[in-house]
Amino acid sequence: MRLAVLGVGLIGGSIGLAARRRLGAEVIGFDPGPTTLARAIEAGAIDIAAASVGEACEGAEVVFCAAPVAGLADLTAAVLESCGPDTVVSDVGSTKRDIVAALGADERFIGGHPLAGAETSGVENAREDLFEGARWYLTPKSERSSGLLYDRLQRTIAGLGARVQAIDPEAHDRLMATVSHLPHVVANVLVGQAAEELTRDSERMPEVGPSFRDTTRVAGANPAIWGDIFASNREAVAEAVDAVAMRLRDAAELIRAGERDAVAEWHAGAAADRRRLLEAELSGGPLRELRVVVANRPGTIAELALALGEAGVNIEDMALYPTPDMTSGAVSLWVSGDDQAARAMALVRELGHTVSAVADGGE
Amino acid sequence: MRLAVLGVGLIGGSIGLAARRRLGAEVIGFDPGPTTLARAIEAGAIDIAAASVGEACEGAEVVFCAAPVAGLADLTAAVLESCGPDTVVSDVGSTKRDIVAALGADERFIGGHPLAGAETSGVENAREDLFEGARWYLTPKSERSSGLLYDRLQRTIAGLGARVQAIDPEAHDRLMATVSHLPHVVANVLVGQAAEELTRDSERMPEVGPSFRDTTRVAGANPAIWGDIFASNREAVAEAVDAVAMRLRDAAELIRAGERDAVAEWHAGAAADRRRLLEAELSGGPLRELRVVVANRPGTIAELALALGEAGVNIEDMALYPTPDMTSGAVSLWVSGDDQAARAMALVRELGHTVSAVADGGE
Repeated sequence: MRLAVLGVGLIGGSIGLAARRRLGAEVIGFDPGPTTLARAIEAGAIDIAAASVGEACEGAEVVFCAAPVAGLADLTAAVLESCGPDTVVSDVGSTKRDIVAALGADERFIGGHPLAGAETSGVENAREDLFEGARWYLTPKSERSSGLLYDRLQRTIAGLGARVQAIDPEAHDRLMATVSHLPHVVANVLVGQAAEELTRDSERMPEVGPSFRDTTRVAGANPAIWGDIFASNREAVAEAVDAVAMRLRDAAELIRAGERDAVAEWHAGAAADRRRLLEAELSGGPLRELRVVVANRPGTIAELALALGEAGVNIEDMALYPTPDMTSGAVSLWVSGDDQAARAMALVRELGHTVSAVADGGE
Repeated sequence: MRLAVLGVGLIGGSIGLAARRRLGAEVIGFDPGPTTLARAIEAGAIDIAAASVGEACEGAEVVFCAAPVAGLADLTAAVLESCGPDTVVSDVGSTKRDIVAALGADERFIGGHPLAGAETSGVENAREDLFEGARWYLTPKSERSSGLLYDRLQRTIAGLGARVQAIDPEAHDRLMATVSHLPHVVANVLVGQAAEELTRDSERMPEVGPSFRDTTRVAGANPAIWGDIFASNREAVAEAVDAVAMRLRDAAELIRAGERDAVAEWHAGAAADRRRLLEAELSGGPLRELRVVVANRPGTIAELALALGEAGVNIEDMALYPTPDMTSGAVSLWVSGDDQAARAMALVRELGHTVSAVADGGE
């Protein structure tokens, strides 16, 4: 199979690596940056460096457009012009409505979005297993997309290790707005609010709590990427943000009214919602949180993680809650299922730490 | 010095331990739960178990009321009735306006709030060093509080290891509303919104991203405690929530308008605010984030943390960003200052991992 990758960064490079090694495909790559192209060859991500979009597309059965969101629609349109009728063309952009609206009338185009790799960038971070087990959304337009081409694309992506799910482009963008873009907007707003509030009464900023740190971890992250994402998904994001604003007004009213039972019910509902959301993404059983009190000296976390690792208990997620001076604190460890939780608790106790199981979240 | 602790849980017990060992104080404790009192004696948190509030207060120079927020005002009022004119009485509740309004007319009462220990509970988790380096707010009423008594209280708390800061009770509650209570309300609202949105289009919940997980980590946490906190700080919390709702509406408008430069400026402002807020609480230099790509098999995190620990690099905070199937992912490590960051990067590279410095947050 001949496969073309247009844009050989982290995602494009990983597609190339996986396609070459797992599918035995011949991969031809193009990138506007010539050094990027050279690095892609060096990393084994592509077999051949093409000199142009047209050259890359020649004879390709599957083409992935993996440029940044801002230039993606133009690139993909150029690709569709270069390709013959028997080529399936997909992209990896994180929003789908606009590009499908622009190009979905072409039966060779099927929009795509792999949920992988957002944490790093560059072909030097490309990995053959980047998509292993990852969700990969495809947005075929049922009335247009060719069944034959969809099937080829779908099998190719499954061969890269990903789990394909077809979804309506608008539903996809609403979904991403809620679980990915919205938290960024909220984080931005919270730090703005805090910065204003905290400088109102004194010169000195006070300590912020662990809950604040968690909630605002992504504030202002990667401006280049997020500018594009907010722009290309602006309606779904704005709608989700408005919905949250409305819910916050309701919450403010509830809290202001001071009806203890109503507040308690609302709070318990949030705990249930969170559990449901987290458990949906894990396979090894419901997530269990263990809270360990530790000295925050170098090595303590390592000792803990090592003991669990040696015993085969995998830490699915971890959060440190240091005291303000960082000399001690608590660590939350999330493990999958009751068995792993019980083993983890026993091991942590053997190390002399205090550990307790947390019922629902917990600060 | 004779010191009384009313309510011997995590905070009261830790006050007792620190007062006995660091100040050589004689500590008398009272708790409505007789087994709690026995455990407090066993843990060395108190010298003497009193049979009543009155007995505990007899002859005490400093009294700390450390009951849960809901019963705190009543307990403190009872304590003030039992104590003579030369006793200073303080509390450790996480909101201050109501209790100061109720009791601040008594010149022996000075409200207090140590920022420590919210991550666990119970006298069995009490530690002599719980307050070491921690901020401890005091809310004297300037026109009423006795200078002599304030001085004694302040010196006692400093002796426990904490850093005392006087603050107006209303400013305190607004501050806490913003940096601690607000993120909980926002987390609750976000999971509610997501649970509704994600079940709208399909039966199956999709994966949620790391940003969503971070932002909603505290959703529905500790219902018992949070019900009280929302109740006792309802006005400041409701006001902060309303302010955030308003900011979100502005953000929605900004995003909907799609002016790239304005969105970029807003986003960059959030990054700057976040850095300012985080750096305010750290002493060892500005926080640096390193992003490491790792296999998420048991032991990898341990190996990393161990290598850093052995080299004396302390991990201030850590976040895992696993791929959906948990086989691999990225780890963010936060360390203090450029020197530690450079050493950490070299060590991580020696272990064969890919590591990069993250400019501002980053998902």
